[in-house]
Amino acid sequence: MKKIAIFPGSFDPFTVGHASVVHRAIPLFDKIIIGIGQNTNKKGFYDIQKRKKWIEAVFAKSPTVEVKIFEGLTVDYCKKVDARFILRGLRTSADFEYERAIGQVNNALYSDVETVFLLTRPEHTAISSSIVREVARHGGDANQFVPKEMDLTI
Amino acid sequence: MKKIAIFPGSFDPFTVGHASVVHRAIPLFDKIIIGIGQNTNKKGFYDIQKRKKWIEAVFAKSPTVEVKIFEGLTVDYCKKVDARFILRGLRTSADFEYERAIGQVNNALYSDVETVFLLTRPEHTAISSSIVREVARHGGDANQFVPKEMDLTI
Amino acid sequence: MKKIAIFPGSFDPFTVGHASVVHRAIPLFDKIIIGIGQNTNKKGFYDIQKRKKWIEAVFAKSPTVEVKIFEGLTVDYCKKVDARFILRGLRTSADFEYERAIGQVNNALYSDVETVFLLTRPEHTAISSSIVREVARHGGDANQFVPKEMDLTI
Amino acid sequence: MKKIAIFPGSFDPFTVGHASVVHRAIPLFDKIIIGIGQNTNKKGFYDIQKRKKWIEAVFAKSPTVEVKIFEGLTVDYCKKVDARFILRGLRTSADFEYERAIGQVNNALYSDVETVFLLTRPEHTAISSSIVREVARHGGDANQFVPKEMDLTI
Amino acid sequence: MKKIAIFPGSFDPFTVGHASVVHRAIPLFDKIIIGIGQNTNKKGFYDIQKRKKWIEAVFAKSPTVEVKIFEGLTVDYCKKVDARFILRGLRTSADFEYERAIGQVNNALYSDVETVFLLTRPEHTAISSSIVREVARHGGDANQFVPKEMDLTI
Amino acid sequence: MKKIAIFPGSFDPFTVGHASVVHRAIPLFDKIIIGIGQNTNKKGFYDIQKRKKWIEAVFAKSPTVEVKIFEGLTVDYCKKVDARFILRGLRTSADFEYERAIGQVNNALYSDVETVFLLTRPEHTAISSSIVREVARHGGDANQFVPKEMDLTI
Repeated sequence: MKKIAIFPGSFDPFTVGHASVVHRAIPLFDKIIIGIGQNTNKKGFYDIQKRKKWIEAVFAKSPTVEVKIFEGLTVDYCKKVDARFILRGLRTSADFEYERAIGQVNNALYSDVETVFLLTRPEHTAISSSIVREVARHGGDANQFVPKEMDLTI
Repeated sequence: MKKIAIFPGSFDPFTVGHASVVHRAIPLFDKIIIGIGQNTNKKGFYDIQKRKKWIEAVFAKSPTVEVKIFEGLTVDYCKKVDARFILRGLRTSADFEYERAIGQVNNALYSDVETVFLLTRPEHTAISSSIVREVARHGGDANQFVPKEMDLTI
Repeated sequence: MKKIAIFPGSFDPFTVGHASVVHRAIPLFDKIIIGIGQNTNKKGFYDIQKRKKWIEAVFAKSPTVEVKIFEGLTVDYCKKVDARFILRGLRTSADFEYERAIGQVNNALYSDVETVFLLTRPEHTAISSSIVREVARHGGDANQFVPKEMDLTI
Repeated sequence: MKKIAIFPGSFDPFTVGHASVVHRAIPLFDKIIIGIGQNTNKKGFYDIQKRKKWIEAVFAKSPTVEVKIFEGLTVDYCKKVDARFILRGLRTSADFEYERAIGQVNNALYSDVETVFLLTRPEHTAISSSIVREVARHGGDANQFVPKEMDLTI
Repeated sequence: MKKIAIFPGSFDPFTVGHASVVHRAIPLFDKIIIGIGQNTNKKGFYDIQKRKKWIEAVFAKSPTVEVKIFEGLTVDYCKKVDARFILRGLRTSADFEYERAIGQVNNALYSDVETVFLLTRPEHTAISSSIVREVARHGGDANQFVPKEMDLTI
Repeated sequence: MKKIAIFPGSFDPFTVGHASVVHRAIPLFDKIIIGIGQNTNKKGFYDIQKRKKWIEAVFAKSPTVEVKIFEGLTVDYCKKVDARFILRGLRTSADFEYERAIGQVNNALYSDVETVFLLTRPEHTAISSSIVREVARHGGDANQFVPKEMDLTI
């Protein structure tokens, strides 16, 4: 059976921390689907199609990485695409408590799915999408926090 | 003097974790009032009267448990119903830091009130009202996270 | 059935934080047994009989508080003295994680026992037996951290 | 070179905890600018000019403390007023994780700026602007949580 | 290239929590080496050969799991057996902070190695080798905390 | 009055993280005394005179930094050398809880002393003296974790 993992998130925007987690997870899985969760009630800061194009550019040379937009529960999307693994990065202990709750509830909803965690690199620990948006909103240099294939100022 | 405790919350919805805390606290108190806090500025996800009926069904056979809706500060409601104890469940260390701040401020506002904590059971640690709402909103099986006397799909 | 609680610890020494937790718990229980755990492999900093006398002095006017020395698992001592509750104070989130593990294991070993937590008062949050020993060992004024009925310099 | 620090926040309202941090930091710096961050998209609970007047009253006798309103990123304001230090108080470990992320991002944006932390006093650990607003909103006695020069009921 | 993971620990003793992590990781790796770290300065509570036999019994039917005793740094053992992954379970946020430090230092020492984390199951969160030893030392029923193939009373 | 800070620790050994904190604190204080705490009951891993020489080499070009060995409580040493500030680095939230307790107790023992915290740099967050000793003990390359003026292999 192929080892398929979902890397779910809103990625508003995708950061160097996200990119690092996916790149390091490539050897672990046959396929990684970066799943951009769409929330019909909440418009993002960056357009969801733009977010998708940005992430595709980052992984243009990684044949086992796909980028998709999905709606609904992550576990339902896992079933749909036959993924048995959810991939997540861990930055801080606050992250951990949140991820543990989500991971345990996902496991209760779909017992065949397992969440696999990698650490973020030390130099990326402080970087979150919300901080990047805050910097960008006030005209700061936010490009240093996203992969070089992306340009937030356009 | 009778030992009266308030178990305050929005209970939107009441979960198996909440139910477990109250059931285990019954031997400690002469009366437990489950106080559903009403926020006039924020409508809940589930109707507040429905929440009250659900909780009453869960404790139909527990004569020392009452369910009430209240507005305003929890300590003011404690004074009104002569409760000297506030009952809370603890799930995670993030919970703890939040509860400690609330407990200390409540004690500053009304020095006769003491907050009493029980642990949630390990299998309930991940379950919060907000996660249950998220699952329900996306059509997942949320009933496994609430007491069997409740049916979120109706 | 009488509500009996054990407040277990090594109390080497008993601190103002410990005293505050027990005093505030008195209204909750018919009897509180302060159980000084004896570890045959590890001699304490203060003599265990001295620790017992100190705590007895602190609660000389509290008829429902007893002080005992016990060996072995806390849950086994609970069974022996018919206690259904273990009382503990919570200071910090590090405390909480440790206490949660102990509480859940105790519950697995003896399902009739429930751990009840009170918060330490803000001004006692920093005070632990190990810090008091450290201050005393170096000749600092450690008496400010213990109840006035105790004198660590004797 | 003069040692100038910014103490940034929304101070909605300023609390005894904030006041204590600034008073204790006065000996460390030649000048402390209390910077009230203005968010054009979000009106505060208390009027921003009122917040400024309140804080000025608290530090009326402290010649090295100034109160200013600023917009945009804190680091950009630091550059503008030639401040090399950001002053922050730390209450809890949840605070710490948040502050560490902000501090590291600020340092990435402006490498000449250093964040300096003081602890809040134990009796102020539970007090945050959001808890004070919540108490005030429900008619509780919120004045005990703010400096005596302020009166939230006016 | 084969995906080889080390699951390092002292396993004094191996618990149901450890077993669960390894069983769930089997689909991720071509080979998992459970590496019992030997500390020449510190004798364990259970004999290291007994620990090895116990773990071998637990995984008797899992052909991709091996059990080895090793000395020295985990990363040096990784190089020796050509393992690019270190497998670890995460129970609590205290665990997480410790594991993050170890993981980042391991990565600094050997940049080709990546630490992969799985969550412990909620019912195993409280179980650690040190708590199991403590229960066993006092004659409590510690067998409920270890895999059924093991018997701590022998 | 001169601003004198103590940076206390066992520094067994001094790390790049320690060095970074002191270097960044130099602009804040008129004098920084790096105080190596001597514990007469516990011999360190590295000789205390060697530790002192190493640190002196690191700050050979920093005229306001002194290195001293002291015994007893840090606050007593502060009084002796007329220091009103204790300088500490913060790495993780576990660090923070420990430092907060020590800081509050120090303040209770000597109300004129204030603890000032700087963040460790992200790339140093994982590095502690105990991890460095562990790496050195097993023959790993520990020199990458200490300032270039030090050589742990000699």
